[in-house]
Amino acid sequence: MPNPIAEELAKKQQAISVAEFFEKNRQILGFDSAPRSLITTVKEAVDNSLDACEEAEILPDIMLHIQRSGKDDVVIIIEDNGPGIVKEQIPKVFAKLLYGSRFHALKQSRGQQGIGISASVLYSQLTAGHPTKIISKISPDSPAHFYELMINTNTNDPEVLSDKIIEWDQPHGTRVEMEMEASYVKGRRQSVYEYLKATAIVNPHARLTLIEPDGGEVLFERATDQLPKPAKEILPHPHGIELGTLMKMLRYTERQKLGPFLRYSFSKIGHLTSEEICKASGLDPELVPQEITRDQSKKLLGAFQKVKIMAPPTDCLSPIGEELIYKGLEKEFNVDFIATTTRSASVFSGNPFVVEVGLAYGGSLQKDDRIDIMRFANRVPLLYQQGGCVTTHAVESVKWKQYGVNQPGGSIPVGPAVLLIHVASTNVPFTSESKDAIADIPVIQDEVELAIKEVGRKLNRYLSRQGTLKKRREKEIIINKVLPRMAEKLAEALNREIPDINPVVAKVMGNLLISRKIEKIGDDKVNVSITAKNFGSKKYDFKLHDMIPYKINNAVPEPRVITIGNDYDHIWTMVLFPGSSRAVTYSLESLTDDDIARLSSPIVEGLEEEMVTGAKAIKGVI
Amino acid sequence: MPNPIAEELAKKQQAISVAEFFEKNRQILGFDSAPRSLITTVKEAVDNSLDACEEAEILPDIMLHIQRSGKDDVVIIIEDNGPGIVKEQIPKVFAKLLYGSRFHALKQSRGQQGIGISASVLYSQLTAGHPTKIISKISPDSPAHFYELMINTNTNDPEVLSDKIIEWDQPHGTRVEMEMEASYVKGRRQSVYEYLKATAIVNPHARLTLIEPDGGEVLFERATDQLPKPAKEILPHPHGIELGTLMKMLRYTERQKLGPFLRYSFSKIGHLTSEEICKASGLDPELVPQEITRDQSKKLLGAFQKVKIMAPPTDCLSPIGEELIYKGLEKEFNVDFIATTTRSASVFSGNPFVVEVGLAYGGSLQKDDRIDIMRFANRVPLLYQQGGCVTTHAVESVKWKQYGVNQPGGSIPVGPAVLLIHVASTNVPFTSESKDAIADIPVIQDEVELAIKEVGRKLNRYLSRQGTLKKRREKEIIINKVLPRMAEKLAEALNREIPDINPVVAKVMGNLLISRKIEKIGDDKVNVSITAKNFGSKKYDFKLHDMIPYKINNAVPEPRVITIGNDYDHIWTMVLFPGSSRAVTYSLESLTDDDIARLSSPIVEGLEEEMVTGAKAIKGVI
Repeated sequence: MPNPIAEELAKKQQAISVAEFFEKNRQILGFDSAPRSLITTVKEAVDNSLDACEEAEILPDIMLHIQRSGKDDVVIIIEDNGPGIVKEQIPKVFAKLLYGSRFHALKQSRGQQGIGISASVLYSQLTAGHPTKIISKISPDSPAHFYELMINTNTNDPEVLSDKIIEWDQPHGTRVEMEMEASYVKGRRQSVYEYLKATAIVNPHARLTLIEPDGGEVLFERATDQLPKPAKEILPHPHGIELGTLMKMLRYTERQKLGPFLRYSFSKIGHLTSEEICKASGLDPELVPQEITRDQSKKLLGAFQKVKIMAPPTDCLSPIGEELIYKGLEKEFNVDFIATTTRSASVFSGNPFVVEVGLAYGGSLQKDDRIDIMRFANRVPLLYQQGGCVTTHAVESVKWKQYGVNQPGGSIPVGPAVLLIHVASTNVPFTSESKDAIADIPVIQDEVELAIKEVGRKLNRYLSRQGTLKKRREKEIIINKVLPRMAEKLAEALNREIPDINPVVAKVMGNLLISRKIEKIGDDKVNVSITAKNFGSKKYDFKLHDMIPYKINNAVPEPRVITIGNDYDHIWTMVLFPGSSRAVTYSLESLTDDDIARLSSPIVEGLEEEMVTGAKAIKGVI
Repeated sequence: MPNPIAEELAKKQQAISVAEFFEKNRQILGFDSAPRSLITTVKEAVDNSLDACEEAEILPDIMLHIQRSGKDDVVIIIEDNGPGIVKEQIPKVFAKLLYGSRFHALKQSRGQQGIGISASVLYSQLTAGHPTKIISKISPDSPAHFYELMINTNTNDPEVLSDKIIEWDQPHGTRVEMEMEASYVKGRRQSVYEYLKATAIVNPHARLTLIEPDGGEVLFERATDQLPKPAKEILPHPHGIELGTLMKMLRYTERQKLGPFLRYSFSKIGHLTSEEICKASGLDPELVPQEITRDQSKKLLGAFQKVKIMAPPTDCLSPIGEELIYKGLEKEFNVDFIATTTRSASVFSGNPFVVEVGLAYGGSLQKDDRIDIMRFANRVPLLYQQGGCVTTHAVESVKWKQYGVNQPGGSIPVGPAVLLIHVASTNVPFTSESKDAIADIPVIQDEVELAIKEVGRKLNRYLSRQGTLKKRREKEIIINKVLPRMAEKLAEALNREIPDINPVVAKVMGNLLISRKIEKIGDDKVNVSITAKNFGSKKYDFKLHDMIPYKINNAVPEPRVITIGNDYDHIWTMVLFPGSSRAVTYSLESLTDDDIARLSSPIVEGLEEEMVTGAKAIKGVI
């Protein structure tokens, strides 16, 4: 007699449609709170528009319109100038989960999963009960198609409520309109505004326009007309391929023999490598792929590791680049120091990836808060799940104290810094379909740590230089206070003129002394000599500027002269070894004592203030 | 002429099978590193066994056998004494993603998603290329079925490689054997051992046996024969139902009229409430559900909020309970203090949930590390993604300083504490299919924070009392050092016996003084009196024990007597108000002076050591 319990339990067993699954688990898709639901939708829509524009090599122009439609509801309209979607595909692209063009392609793209925008359609019908309205047009000569779509959650198939041709004044592009329970928030990191701002930083070729519920319009204008280098689709690389994947590839390939199968199914396997692999695995290149057993596949996999195969091509990736990261940080934050790095490509499970990091420090950033981590994956800002992201875990694993940054409790460091981290890959391993955090893949964590350490070392050099300079400055302040008073007292006691203490200061501080002597020769001539003496222990390499409102005569050596308004900037380039000195001389005509008193002091360009006595110092660029 | 780009892009559009999706995104299922892949598999298998046993009301007996099968591969065997699975269901249960019995049921269970174990089968075939072997038997009289299964990832359907009847010496149960790329690690929180230990803490009715790769056997024996209260399946509650869900329910209901639809589709809607809802929404109870429009549905939804509806039933939940949490923490950790709380049930999106928290503090826990957070959802330990979990975010949001715990950088506090957090719900909103972290649902975060604050306040009281006691102890040490020496000197000077200074100490310290006087009456009788005097400012509530190896006579008042080995424990319960005193008397027969000297001092049960002078103090339980 069969057990009634197992029979009873069996009655409840049933298949679950993927739409049903995500309807119940919508938090997995990023719909767990009203503000986040809106951001998730904006993110999916903007991702799609940017991907489509890049694939069609169009400079993206994306308009986002958010309107309040009820106490807890908003209407979201996203319109782009992309290539449009062919009529037949529209229902499936928007109203079928797990449908897309980028899932099987091995190249860097924002959408990878085939879930994105259809998840928003699902959430929209769940919370507002309305269909999503789509307009799409693929060329100026093609009609604009209008659809009203819902998802049948029992079958995960599109339900078409309306399908017609309409007038639309755009040459090509797509417009999506949906209503949902969501809320528009301002003034915090996790907001549509900040999402778009961060998107603009790493996608300077895009123009993004936001019309807020209160009617306010925000324009993120494109900073360049240059499209990013398009990522190229590649074949899988033999390293990191799983046994099961290889077996599946062998089973479904169109090739008749193992040799050609290897050459045409993988990147970086040519004739020679293919032969070597067959030899190392002990398999005949003439074998029929479909007949290769599990154990033979395992030998093949072993041979992939033994034979030398070139690293995967990296043109499937499109990193942001150090320059752009630098500019982005510089534009958005008022800081004293920026360091950036783009690592060379690595591989996890056969997927090439690149890590980029930018660190901005000081300036007006908050000193007592945890550092601000800006995370990006394939040029998309990640706003949620920071604590669950491998990039955060890498930040926590780094010993920040060695770079001069506080790290209480060994977690996220505290200090005036912004850390930008970008992971670009043909397949970013997100921890969930909401694509907010990257999984703890050891090799990715290693790469992020190495990148952070690189910028950390640069920061440390900057900070220790700042520390030395600070100490020098403090020393000089003391010397500058004490010495003049001593000199004054001495002069008073001896009834003599107060001596020039600059040489003494320079000597004590071990730095560069600049002294300008002005000698009146009769009534109409003035001789000027400027002496630079290096009291330090290092070579000083600098430019000496004497900016005065007069033309000079008989200059030795002859300076370069630049006219700036009423002033003439006289510039001498100097290299002074420790202990050496150099003088420049020139003469002026008819200066009164007042004129002389009004002359501003010389300027040293290229040295820190603390390195110079007797002249102003500007850092400049030498 | 149509735009060639959109046409080109359309060619790549295709449906993605759910198996294919998870094959590519296996990190989402918890397979992102070798150690984690093993833990995920163990977790899914143990979850299934525990769920099935509970449903069949069987005390679970689960055997886990892990063997190394290659450099990077292991074989995992899990065998349970559960109700078994009927033959027809075996292939789908193990080799079809999104298939299960608990997805649609509104009650607390471990498996909710219909993904679990089939994900392990998928990962096994991907990395080891072998089918999974299943044996299942539903009763002693039924045959044991043996299956070898793989998943066809193109269609997400089972591929049956073997299907036969075998001999199996178990009366009923299921045995799963699979090989995969994974690794067995020891000695860290994220390990199979710690997973089972944590599982045992919150499932004391289960027996878990682990055979490790090196042959070592670990037994987590059940601590109780009592099954947890079974969670009952409920109907959805009207509060938190989404508009789309309501529309779907109306469309697919078997009821012919709105009134019965409401009564039979929701919990807590009876005749009266149903009528009120119809009235408040302006809808006729006779309406045909399938004909109700979106706008009418919206009115219905509005009425759910207006009409008073009782809170959802909570017998769909099965919390661990404060006592069990207390015992679990006490058993596993050597600590000074434990506080626990089980909050009353709340609701998110129509799903009832309960939060429980236990806090263990002090003892041998590390003082300088971040506190240890043990997270559980529906009695399942959560080992990964701590940083991405709402429970962690709640821990970070609480201002721990007010409870006497350090919290550098406003993140996870630092101190000698273990914080156990359990969220039980009919639908735990995990952030991903790997079920490692709970999403940031505001109402859940609120409940966790409130629970933490409750135990935090208890901790604070304990710590400030400890602070006071510490001061008292220091004071007493000084007094105990100084007074005896003063008394000694005084006695010496006056040539008298050293006086008993206990009354003075008790008076100075303001505490309970216990003094036992023993008087010999002739050779064969001894009178004993024990006096307790309260010098403090609070009422003392305690038990006085006099544990001696003799029977006593003529006791006034009569004590309770417990025989412990050769000793008799005489117990008097006492309540002493400030300033008052009480004496107990009894007599003994024929004691020598040596016997008297060997008597141990009385014991006070229920007061801190610092509160008592002249007797030992034990905390005990009053």
